[in-house]
Amino acid sequence: MAPRNAFYAQSGGVTAVINASAAGVIETARAHRSKIGRVLAGRNGIIGALTEDLIDTSKESARDIRALTSTPAGAFGSCRYKLKGLDESRAQYERLIDVFRAHDIGYFFYNGGNDSADTCLKVSQVADKLGYPLVAVHVPKTVDNDLAVTDNCPGFGSVAKYVATSMREAAFDVASMAATSTKVFVLEVMGRHAGWITAAVGMAEDAETPIPLVLLFPEIPFDEARFTAAVETRVKRFGYCCIGVSEGLQNAEGRLMAEAGSKDAFGHAQLGGVGPLIANLVRERLRYKYHWAVADYLQRAARHLASKTDLDQSYAVGRAAVLLALKGHNAVMPAIVRTSDKPYRWKIGIAQLADVANQEKMLPRDFITSDGLGITAKARAYLAPLIKGESPPPYRDGLPRYVRLKNVAVAKRLATSFDI
Amino acid sequence: MAPRNAFYAQSGGVTAVINASAAGVIETARAHRSKIGRVLAGRNGIIGALTEDLIDTSKESARDIRALTSTPAGAFGSCRYKLKGLDESRAQYERLIDVFRAHDIGYFFYNGGNDSADTCLKVSQVADKLGYPLVAVHVPKTVDNDLAVTDNCPGFGSVAKYVATSMREAAFDVASMAATSTKVFVLEVMGRHAGWITAAVGMAEDAETPIPLVLLFPEIPFDEARFTAAVETRVKRFGYCCIGVSEGLQNAEGRLMAEAGSKDAFGHAQLGGVGPLIANLVRERLRYKYHWAVADYLQRAARHLASKTDLDQSYAVGRAAVLLALKGHNAVMPAIVRTSDKPYRWKIGIAQLADVANQEKMLPRDFITSDGLGITAKARAYLAPLIKGESPPPYRDGLPRYVRLKNVAVAKRLATSFDI
Repeated sequence: MAPRNAFYAQSGGVTAVINASAAGVIETARAHRSKIGRVLAGRNGIIGALTEDLIDTSKESARDIRALTSTPAGAFGSCRYKLKGLDESRAQYERLIDVFRAHDIGYFFYNGGNDSADTCLKVSQVADKLGYPLVAVHVPKTVDNDLAVTDNCPGFGSVAKYVATSMREAAFDVASMAATSTKVFVLEVMGRHAGWITAAVGMAEDAETPIPLVLLFPEIPFDEARFTAAVETRVKRFGYCCIGVSEGLQNAEGRLMAEAGSKDAFGHAQLGGVGPLIANLVRERLRYKYHWAVADYLQRAARHLASKTDLDQSYAVGRAAVLLALKGHNAVMPAIVRTSDKPYRWKIGIAQLADVANQEKMLPRDFITSDGLGITAKARAYLAPLIKGESPPPYRDGLPRYVRLKNVAVAKRLATSFDI
Repeated sequence: MAPRNAFYAQSGGVTAVINASAAGVIETARAHRSKIGRVLAGRNGIIGALTEDLIDTSKESARDIRALTSTPAGAFGSCRYKLKGLDESRAQYERLIDVFRAHDIGYFFYNGGNDSADTCLKVSQVADKLGYPLVAVHVPKTVDNDLAVTDNCPGFGSVAKYVATSMREAAFDVASMAATSTKVFVLEVMGRHAGWITAAVGMAEDAETPIPLVLLFPEIPFDEARFTAAVETRVKRFGYCCIGVSEGLQNAEGRLMAEAGSKDAFGHAQLGGVGPLIANLVRERLRYKYHWAVADYLQRAARHLASKTDLDQSYAVGRAAVLLALKGHNAVMPAIVRTSDKPYRWKIGIAQLADVANQEKMLPRDFITSDGLGITAKARAYLAPLIKGESPPPYRDGLPRYVRLKNVAVAKRLATSFDI
């Protein structure tokens, strides 16, 4: 049987290490040329498949594909574009199969989060229904770490390392200034609904480096009195206080503290601004001088500070996806299975997409201290290995050297176009 | 003659590498024990001298002093506290001399920016007038890079490397998302009056890695029409646009675009918030989806990404300050002298404090492109060597390991106290 081609696409918000998953897919496919032809990537994610705008990754050198492991963001472009249910979006699913048929795609690798796991599952179902032979494997990715089944999610460890490092560094700064100037520092971090990234801020401190921290999780409704009391106690005792706040912090009524008003293509509110809001509250209630930072994309793009564990796992899930597909596993996702905390050991397991799709894994309540403002030893034991290890990118002239691929388009084979 | 003690203090906003200057001072003093006794540090800067709250650095191990070279922020505490003119603040200057006399301080090393250079000069003048033998040497430090005479200022190179790296990484992220989501990314950076840090954002792009950038300098009054046209042109041509904006951006009337309202101890306005303001303008005028980041302290505390050039120079000015003092140079500052651009060569020269104090070195107009929105080749030639080289701190358990000194207090010898 002639080798069939593979399709690979990146979906949703990108990460510092999603390209390592791409490298894992492409390098592993190249190592199995007798079974997989070319890897065609969707330009700007699944939109590339719908519009038949495919990238021929076989035109990229082995060196450039390797360089993906040290390049942040989505090398082929990603998108925020959600396919809905089979009834609502049937034309889109069928169009995908048309494009796959035209390019002899036998393998579908979709690299994303909850929404794309659902899309991946539906694509496999539609293919099945239409009698089109396709193996669909989801490759996990999300900085939010909210994917079900997998112990942790590629992309998260690097953000965790970034926010913990940044908060530690900022804490040293604030401690220096607190006698006469800034006493409170606020860092707003990502994580819409799940407080994994907020929890990671807590790793800034440890036994050797205590830091007076207050964490505001999206899972814990904001309690102003409790919060200001905690900040005041720390400033009085230590001279300063550092606050990590989730962009998704909610009030007691379940409303976002900072609602920017606009919504993205998935219908999620576009967030930002709770950091300055909390800082201002500190000034109004406690009269402390403050500074605030909003890391935004900096935290998820910071390949220069990626976690080696995260990088290794990102590559591994890309590689495993291909190996699973070659074994005929359909509608699955390679999951990270933790077999030991200390020493940290992990392996790749197999998750059924039906168990992953559209699930959201929240921070367990026992990862959060009883006062709702810090992390427990259990959280630390979970987070510690995920931020471990450094794997800096190559530098040239003082800056990280990131690759840009040629991204050569595959000639279209369909007479029809498709409007997004 | 018995060796006299030295006093060292950190002043104003701290940096990723000011502790390297402290290490330079202390290690060099320790290497000249026949001439310099102990190095006593001011706890929280000059306030420590005024209140006779001194730290005995001789209690710190050689290993911990060495670890200062890889630790950000001010290990002894800094302060925002400005001594005024001799007439207004005479009591404070005389108190300083009293404390110095009580602890046999023969050398005064003051590590700061424009304001502290002025203080250092005045201290030397008061000592002279009172017949107290003191050698006063200023050690340059400021992320703003606005000190006169010196080619560049320790602390700046690391911020420059941070903002250029961060913008490059964010640009890769935005480029990935632009087809369906974020098209404009705004990064607000420090630099109250001088646009050196804003210019450094421009280093994010180079011939190999072009990025559609727009820079908003504090030296160039904000021109909304020109700005929105530039953003629109870039988005239409490249699909996205990245904007670096100085916290000190002013409108045509010379008013700060984002005035937080509060002022610090030096009478400077406390800034922050122009990033979201510019982002919002992009949405209102152009309807592009945006993200914004405010790096705030993260940029100046980021020892994990320090420039090796900056680190070396920070240590060198600390070391040179001691050597200059030992040679009897008074009321001077070691300055960085660039002797060659390519290959970059520099040496330490001697600046007279009278030429440095209260001067502010702005970004030259020929470092900014004629449209006011970018940097020229001349700026690149100046900035390139300053961000070069990496010198990561040691990591443990995935996080940078930063030292905290014991900071043992020196017993007070004066019966009098002093109210700040």
